[in-house]
Amino acid sequence: MSLRSEIFNQVSVIDRLLQRRMGVVQDIAAEICKRDIQFIFLAARGTSDNAGLYAKYLWGAFNQLPIALAAPSLFSIYEKPPALKNALVLGISQSGQSPDIVSVVAEGRRQGVSTMAITNDPGSPLAQEAEFVIDLDTGPEKAVAATKTYTAQLMAIAMFSVAMKGDKKRLLDLERVPVLIQQVLELDDTIERVAERYRYMQQCVVLGRGYNYSTAFEWSLKLKELAYVVAEPYSSADFQHGPMAILSHGFPVFAVVPQGAVFADMMELLSTLVRDCSVELLVVSNEGQVLELAQTPLRIPTNLPEWLSPIVCIVPAQLFSFHLTQARGFDTEKPRGLRKVTLTR
Amino acid sequence: MSLRSEIFNQVSVIDRLLQRRMGVVQDIAAEICKRDIQFIFLAARGTSDNAGLYAKYLWGAFNQLPIALAAPSLFSIYEKPPALKNALVLGISQSGQSPDIVSVVAEGRRQGVSTMAITNDPGSPLAQEAEFVIDLDTGPEKAVAATKTYTAQLMAIAMFSVAMKGDKKRLLDLERVPVLIQQVLELDDTIERVAERYRYMQQCVVLGRGYNYSTAFEWSLKLKELAYVVAEPYSSADFQHGPMAILSHGFPVFAVVPQGAVFADMMELLSTLVRDCSVELLVVSNEGQVLELAQTPLRIPTNLPEWLSPIVCIVPAQLFSFHLTQARGFDTEKPRGLRKVTLTR
Repeated sequence: MSLRSEIFNQVSVIDRLLQRRMGVVQDIAAEICKRDIQFIFLAARGTSDNAGLYAKYLWGAFNQLPIALAAPSLFSIYEKPPALKNALVLGISQSGQSPDIVSVVAEGRRQGVSTMAITNDPGSPLAQEAEFVIDLDTGPEKAVAATKTYTAQLMAIAMFSVAMKGDKKRLLDLERVPVLIQQVLELDDTIERVAERYRYMQQCVVLGRGYNYSTAFEWSLKLKELAYVVAEPYSSADFQHGPMAILSHGFPVFAVVPQGAVFADMMELLSTLVRDCSVELLVVSNEGQVLELAQTPLRIPTNLPEWLSPIVCIVPAQLFSFHLTQARGFDTEKPRGLRKVTLTR
Repeated sequence: MSLRSEIFNQVSVIDRLLQRRMGVVQDIAAEICKRDIQFIFLAARGTSDNAGLYAKYLWGAFNQLPIALAAPSLFSIYEKPPALKNALVLGISQSGQSPDIVSVVAEGRRQGVSTMAITNDPGSPLAQEAEFVIDLDTGPEKAVAATKTYTAQLMAIAMFSVAMKGDKKRLLDLERVPVLIQQVLELDDTIERVAERYRYMQQCVVLGRGYNYSTAFEWSLKLKELAYVVAEPYSSADFQHGPMAILSHGFPVFAVVPQGAVFADMMELLSTLVRDCSVELLVVSNEGQVLELAQTPLRIPTNLPEWLSPIVCIVPAQLFSFHLTQARGFDTEKPRGLRKVTLTR
């Protein structure tokens, strides 16, 4: 299956995950809720690490859980792991193979704390080490650049959040995600056309904040992996604490700005960047005010709850990365220097 | 005081911090040790956030403390802060002014948990909210790009680690840091010369791992703030999980590779990058084997303990960023678009 068909496959992958796995997720959540979990200790790399950023905001906001992102080398190279008392140790990995991620979950088990894996391979070393496993069940992901396993990871994270709270209103929201993805996939022709403009772009920044901090990271990663563009992700706040200095006239700024709590903050920053630095904007949003600022506006559906917006907003970003790669004449199926499964210590 | 003099001022700043503040840090550590702290919850932005990465590795490895990096917008914009039971909430900020960082520490206080500030202004809002304060006492930092307050933050983090363990051997190591910084400052002429080569560089990646993951981030930030180079920081492991695809013949790779536990891993990656991708290397190291791989080797002192190496390794990186900025004809004292104190929500 090609990258393109895996992108389009996301509607059914997400729907199937929700239909088949919500029961298991609810059982896991019920068991976890009985324990005195005070924080999540999360290990992941690459795309899975970007999914972890979504968990950091979502579980922080709705489940009051602080998230510590593990430094896997403390486990695998320095062999000086921290004390994990009262943690839920979570590994996220498509393949479940990378030794450094497995070593974090194994250490959690050794210390006798709760452990969980979110993976596409329930037979993997990661799944075998973990007490609880959420199987993403997306079918094999053949393309080197992850797409459907990323949205499936986000969906699993959202399902776990809802299950931990037993929240019926948000469960109904979850059921709308496949249709929302279907709607943004209809942008495909538009995105193919607008990608042309960026044929000679060498570098860009990608801005997101709050829940969509994850989207900024994942979009940047796709641009690097596939189109070989040096794309740097930032929260709108971190960007102002230094990196903003790189901007000059016409510098491309991509921004993920759905309606929600961080909208006003992002809108203010983008207006300033256009006014003071004459940057060029590509915007993914469902709010006319910010779309009007952009040379390249990509309009996504309204009535999209902010907490679920990362699962939807990444899809036009995937399509953009795919089409830009084709416009630049690179092979979307064989990114140079990469393999599907990366084993790091 | 200019950026250059603040860089050279670091020898006396670090020495004074150790001499004047170790007692206070030991008192704070003694009090913290009596409490049941299970993790650190850290809020910081920009350079201070990079110092936080050092804390993540150092306190993880030597003090067995997991570190959660806060998502300040959960406090300031979403107003849905996580539960901080058994956390030590720590704000790091040169100015102690940014409302989002202050709001995280204020929430810690509201929830009745331990709070600490590391700041250059003991009269700042951040210091006023915190139960414990480590005053960096560097004198005013006038340059927009932070240098001496960064190394002072790292030193305070190292002092706190030593104080928490009551570790006499490592206390002696701490006392050698000012001399080690003095030694790397002597690279100034060399660095001024080699910076010429990078006059037309538009982008680069900066690699570090373990303790020096922080150095990769801080070096990248200086390159962006001062020289307007799109510099991207990575751990050697994360880099292999996707971003490596951006490399092409002659792509500039900067690497921080002192002797230590992660050396072999970094050496292996850099050898591969040279062999398979023909990248161009600039290396900061005290190990001949990796310096020989590099077009631009920067040799730092041997007998540098790995756990303290970030405080020393960042200094040639600061000098490099300074000289590159001059070579490119930009103003080292007035980075465009930045102010010394950035107030983000």
